[in-house]
Amino acid sequence: SRQEAINRVKGLFTGPPFDDAHMDAFRSYRELFEKQSERAVEATKILRSSPEFRSLHQQQRRVNMADLYASGSLGIHFVAFLPFLETQASDEQKRRWLAGARNLEYIGAYAQTELGHGSNVRALETTATFDPLTDEFVIHSPTLTSIKWWPTGMYASTHGIVFAQLYSKGTNYGYHGFMVQFRDDQGHLMPGVEVGEIGPKIDPRNTNIGYARFTHVRVPRFNLFARNQQLTREGEYIAAPPKLSKFKYIGMMTIRSGMVGGAYSMTANAVTTAVRYLCIRRQGFKDSTSENALASGEHAVLDYQLHQYRVFKALALAYAFHFSSRYANEFLARVRDGVMAGDDTAADGLPELHATLAGMKTFCTWTAHQQVEAMRKSCGGQGFLRASGVGDLAQAATEPVTAEGEHVILALQTARFLMKTVREMRRHLAPVGSVAYMREPPVRPEELGERGGALGPGALPASVRPLLLRLLGDRSRRFAEKLEAGFAAEVARGATFDQALNKVMVLAFRAAECHTIYTLARNNHDVVLQKTQEGPLRDALLRLYELISLQLVYENAGDFLGLLSDADAILARINRLLEQIRPDAVALTDGFGFTDWNLKSTLGRFDGNVYEAIYEEAKLSPLN
Amino acid sequence: SRQEAINRVKGLFTGPPFDDAHMDAFRSYRELFEKQSERAVEATKILRSSPEFRSLHQQQRRVNMADLYASGSLGIHFVAFLPFLETQASDEQKRRWLAGARNLEYIGAYAQTELGHGSNVRALETTATFDPLTDEFVIHSPTLTSIKWWPTGMYASTHGIVFAQLYSKGTNYGYHGFMVQFRDDQGHLMPGVEVGEIGPKIDPRNTNIGYARFTHVRVPRFNLFARNQQLTREGEYIAAPPKLSKFKYIGMMTIRSGMVGGAYSMTANAVTTAVRYLCIRRQGFKDSTSENALASGEHAVLDYQLHQYRVFKALALAYAFHFSSRYANEFLARVRDGVMAGDDTAADGLPELHATLAGMKTFCTWTAHQQVEAMRKSCGGQGFLRASGVGDLAQAATEPVTAEGEHVILALQTARFLMKTVREMRRHLAPVGSVAYMREPPVRPEELGERGGALGPGALPASVRPLLLRLLGDRSRRFAEKLEAGFAAEVARGATFDQALNKVMVLAFRAAECHTIYTLARNNHDVVLQKTQEGPLRDALLRLYELISLQLVYENAGDFLGLLSDADAILARINRLLEQIRPDAVALTDGFGFTDWNLKSTLGRFDGNVYEAIYEEAKLSPLN
Ligand SMILES: Cc1cc2nc3c(=O)[nH]c(=O)nc-3n(C[C@H](O)[C@H](O)[C@H](O)COP(=O)(O)OP(=O)(O)OC[C@H]3O[C@@H](n4cnc5c(N)ncnc54)[C@H](O)[C@@H]3O)c2cc1C
Ligand SMILES: Cc1cc2nc3c(=O)[nH]c(=O)nc-3n(C[C@H](O)[C@H](O)[C@H](O)COP(=O)(O)OP(=O)(O)OC[C@H]3O[C@@H](n4cnc5c(N)ncnc54)[C@H](O)[C@@H]3O)c2cc1C
Repeated sequence: SRQEAINRVKGLFTGPPFDDAHMDAFRSYRELFEKQSERAVEATKILRSSPEFRSLHQQQRRVNMADLYASGSLGIHFVAFLPFLETQASDEQKRRWLAGARNLEYIGAYAQTELGHGSNVRALETTATFDPLTDEFVIHSPTLTSIKWWPTGMYASTHGIVFAQLYSKGTNYGYHGFMVQFRDDQGHLMPGVEVGEIGPKIDPRNTNIGYARFTHVRVPRFNLFARNQQLTREGEYIAAPPKLSKFKYIGMMTIRSGMVGGAYSMTANAVTTAVRYLCIRRQGFKDSTSENALASGEHAVLDYQLHQYRVFKALALAYAFHFSSRYANEFLARVRDGVMAGDDTAADGLPELHATLAGMKTFCTWTAHQQVEAMRKSCGGQGFLRASGVGDLAQAATEPVTAEGEHVILALQTARFLMKTVREMRRHLAPVGSVAYMREPPVRPEELGERGGALGPGALPASVRPLLLRLLGDRSRRFAEKLEAGFAAEVARGATFDQALNKVMVLAFRAAECHTIYTLARNNHDVVLQKTQEGPLRDALLRLYELISLQLVYENAGDFLGLLSDADAILARINRLLEQIRPDAVALTDGFGFTDWNLKSTLGRFDGNVYEAIYEEAKLSPLN
Repeated sequence: SRQEAINRVKGLFTGPPFDDAHMDAFRSYRELFEKQSERAVEATKILRSSPEFRSLHQQQRRVNMADLYASGSLGIHFVAFLPFLETQASDEQKRRWLAGARNLEYIGAYAQTELGHGSNVRALETTATFDPLTDEFVIHSPTLTSIKWWPTGMYASTHGIVFAQLYSKGTNYGYHGFMVQFRDDQGHLMPGVEVGEIGPKIDPRNTNIGYARFTHVRVPRFNLFARNQQLTREGEYIAAPPKLSKFKYIGMMTIRSGMVGGAYSMTANAVTTAVRYLCIRRQGFKDSTSENALASGEHAVLDYQLHQYRVFKALALAYAFHFSSRYANEFLARVRDGVMAGDDTAADGLPELHATLAGMKTFCTWTAHQQVEAMRKSCGGQGFLRASGVGDLAQAATEPVTAEGEHVILALQTARFLMKTVREMRRHLAPVGSVAYMREPPVRPEELGERGGALGPGALPASVRPLLLRLLGDRSRRFAEKLEAGFAAEVARGATFDQALNKVMVLAFRAAECHTIYTLARNNHDVVLQKTQEGPLRDALLRLYELISLQLVYENAGDFLGLLSDADAILARINRLLEQIRPDAVALTDGFGFTDWNLKSTLGRFDGNVYEAIYEEAKLSPLN
């Protein structure tokens, strides 16, 4: 497991400059940047000298830099720059660049976003104009808004993959990736390159995020990433085969798939801290109305129904993300490896993969942020101290919602795929793969029993659990159909594609959400049944699956108007489940495998000595 | 208006040390603390020397310290310490303390929360034991968990109102406020007082928050706040008259009422920035499917339906908070002034005031945080830079959800009041005041028209608007009744009060939410009709009221099972409203009156030169 992998190599990251991360919160912006750079340098040495670490980190991808130390932004080299190289470079380019990149002989940023454009990548303004006289591209930033803005690590990297509009002989062939060197081996900027830093972010640990402006910077023609498309010596553009045109997104898809795993680990981390703290934290008299309330003792916060509702929801979601993260990675690997091996049918899977990962990335990261913040809130005042761990986590969890595909845009991609599916179904093409469930017959109101009793406390788990899946699938199909119908009606009225989409955008976002939630629930259900034996573990995991599915139906009961006549029975079942889950809660969080070393949280300590920890941590303040 | 008041005195806060707040984000923790202290010292001088500022700040309460400069935590003296003095000190105590407090001759913290107890104030562990020999109280922290923890400003204040269990002759009379001096006039700690700092918080601007431990600290008996209860020289405890027992909460209620205003100003601030930026930000081709998409131009983000849905929701909520903030302040003033003037019937209003403010504080601050974060997200990557203003705002908006009454606890207070109301209704006592609406006849399904058409695009505003109010009121009554019935059933099964409440806690939270939302909607509707003339302004404000009410029904359609058969008509009406609101959006945010000086946001600039501003702000980074 990932935790075991971390434990095997974490010994390499002890001592200075790794051991004073708890003082980072006191540093000035510059001091923090310098400290992080020092750590990056040391980490580079470790990477070069430890084959075990290199293998776990790069071949097996079981540890991240951020798992091992308070890192700053060296990770981007491995999660964005390197995968792009691996999948988009020609064989010749790989021979030239890959070994050095893997060994950190140079460090690369992923320089796509500009001041003026993030989501609309096709409108990037940076230009790469082919100069046939010298066989070079001229990389240039023609406007203020064309400045590269946001790339992680770019302030202190030596290279970058720069995305720019490729011009040859006066024709624009759209945006492409180019290898551009920012600094020479003395660290000085290359001619025409201006690199800077963009200032403090809401996540205080982010320092090294950069901007770059290019003034007629020349790179060899060789530096156009050329696995799928090329420019000849004569300036002729040879396009990628149509089927492979989407393969240029495989790097971004890899990151998005990784972000589903990130949603898991952030949620799991926050919920571990919350469960541990709220078992220790006692607040509120057991008998508040008695004369001698003080003597009645106090409740552990985790014994309150409302906090169970919230905390176990996050717990269930963490497991759900985990199961879907595997699914996403496997789906991605199947398509990527097929395409890389030259299998043409594998390329057919690209649109579906893209739509699936777009939805997963959007709703897992969005929900993870919500849940981490909910866990932070349930810790009361203590969740405000950075020493709690959950505070910083809530900050960190916002980034993936926006970066690497802004969440609204990605949801719309999924929605477009769903509309296509519905159109095919209208033409009697049976949906397959990730949307095969849309073939299922619609749920009938009778299935829900009188007053929703089929989801009530009296119903058997064995019937409730598949019914929930059917309900979520049915909802998704209905939303997709409604979306497509609304869109088609706008088109029939004469709207263009974009106009029509804009008229149904609220619904489109929801349809993408419904589809993704169904997928998460199905993976959750199926993986538990496939990967566990009958017994208490399976029961505990199925209870979590049931809880989160019931909560999703209960909180969105309005999506089931006409099917559901009453939601009270669902709430009653939820409340009973909460009581059943309570005895397993600690074990289920322990199961994530976080140690004190991972959590770095005064509240999440395994030994429960939270008050001592809070006090001692506060004593570190240089003001004391 | 508040903005005018700010404009009148902001000139006093120019020049050093007030003019370098934009560099605060680069400072170390210690540097920031020192800078904030410097500003507090200067602000104190201004307060002492400017009668106009003192009047606007203290008599008229139209400006806050935080409105005028990047303040740190001097504000707590005025919002917590001083109101407590004003309402809980005896006349003699006022003569001794009030003038000095108003003039900032000393600075006081509000030292209630301890390491071990926040919400359960009755379980505070600090003791104040009367010593009849010396006519003194001995203030003592007997345990680690009894350390005062969290009080804002406490690290650098001279005094504090310390809450402690009052013991006399071996009897505990519950917790009371005591005036305790922390430091002498040289700034040295008084004997037995240990004060420290608790470390970095998620809001990086919070430095001066402290802890305090007392070792047998002696204060005169005089220092027990004695307006309502006293201890005699002989150690006899004279309790407050029962009716006034809740009056000791009036200080907290004042803060909570102020927090409704804070929810308004944070939401309004964030939505102003979002509207301005998203009118400038163009992203996404108008014709993305055309061969020459680039030439089609790009949409302003505010022209996308989904972003309108989110941004106008926040806009409508900001206005709703504003209208309810007045209501809360007036309600509070009526009761407080009545009680202070010795009017006994005014004291009867305390429980209702308490329940109303508890709900308002909870759901306004909770929703404000959600909305500010949503606005930050809609700015895409730029919302991550602290220079955007919205990033810090999202951080700041979390604090009021927890501080001065944790939101869950407060919601439960409101829920208890609702249960009492239902019990009285069952006994045929007509509900009055804030719950009078519960007398209204239930909504009948027919009122909603076929397929929810009565809320659809074809219905007349004049019928939709009151219907929405009826629906929200009906929902609140139903939830309150359901809650009371569930609670009563548990009691009938033998549960104690606390056990029964814990069995229905999820529902209780929602019932409090429904009641508060109804109240917000009603105030919104009524104030617009009462305070505006017929005309475009009234129309624009009523559209916002209608929008947010429709959104609340649409997003919670599951609360109307059995009444509503279809929510599609509601969404269609919402989408049409969004188009109608769009032309007013800029004017409606300008109406809040924020200037660039207030917003301190690269994105919210009135002149729209956002890219220049972002770039220039980044250049300030000491790394550049
Ligand atoms: C911490 C962090 C690290 C990053 N690291 C990198 C990096 O390493 N390399 C890199 O290249 N970039 C990086 N980015 C940039 C990131 O990829 C962009 O922020 C992201 O793609 C969104 O683009 P944007 O910021 O320009 O927002 P915009 O695209 O301008 O979005 C603003 C708003 O417009 C809306 N919007 C835009 N288009 C549409 C549409 N067609 N329909 C409806 N709504 C629309 C969005 O939903 C959003 O609400 C990073 C960003 C952050 C915050
Ligand atoms: C920035 C900031 C500034 C502050 N300033 C001050 C100040 O100036 N002076 C001061 O005295 N204090 C101050 N506080 C403390 C603040 O008032 C407390 O944090 C707040 O009252 C909550 O108490 P707690 O932190 O002990 O949380 P707890 O009460 O321990 O709450 C933890 C969790 O338990 C739950 N819980 C507790 N009791 C119950 C119950 N009966 N039923 C169900 N759930 C329950 C809560 O919902 C919460 O989820 C400040 C706090 C912050 C964050």
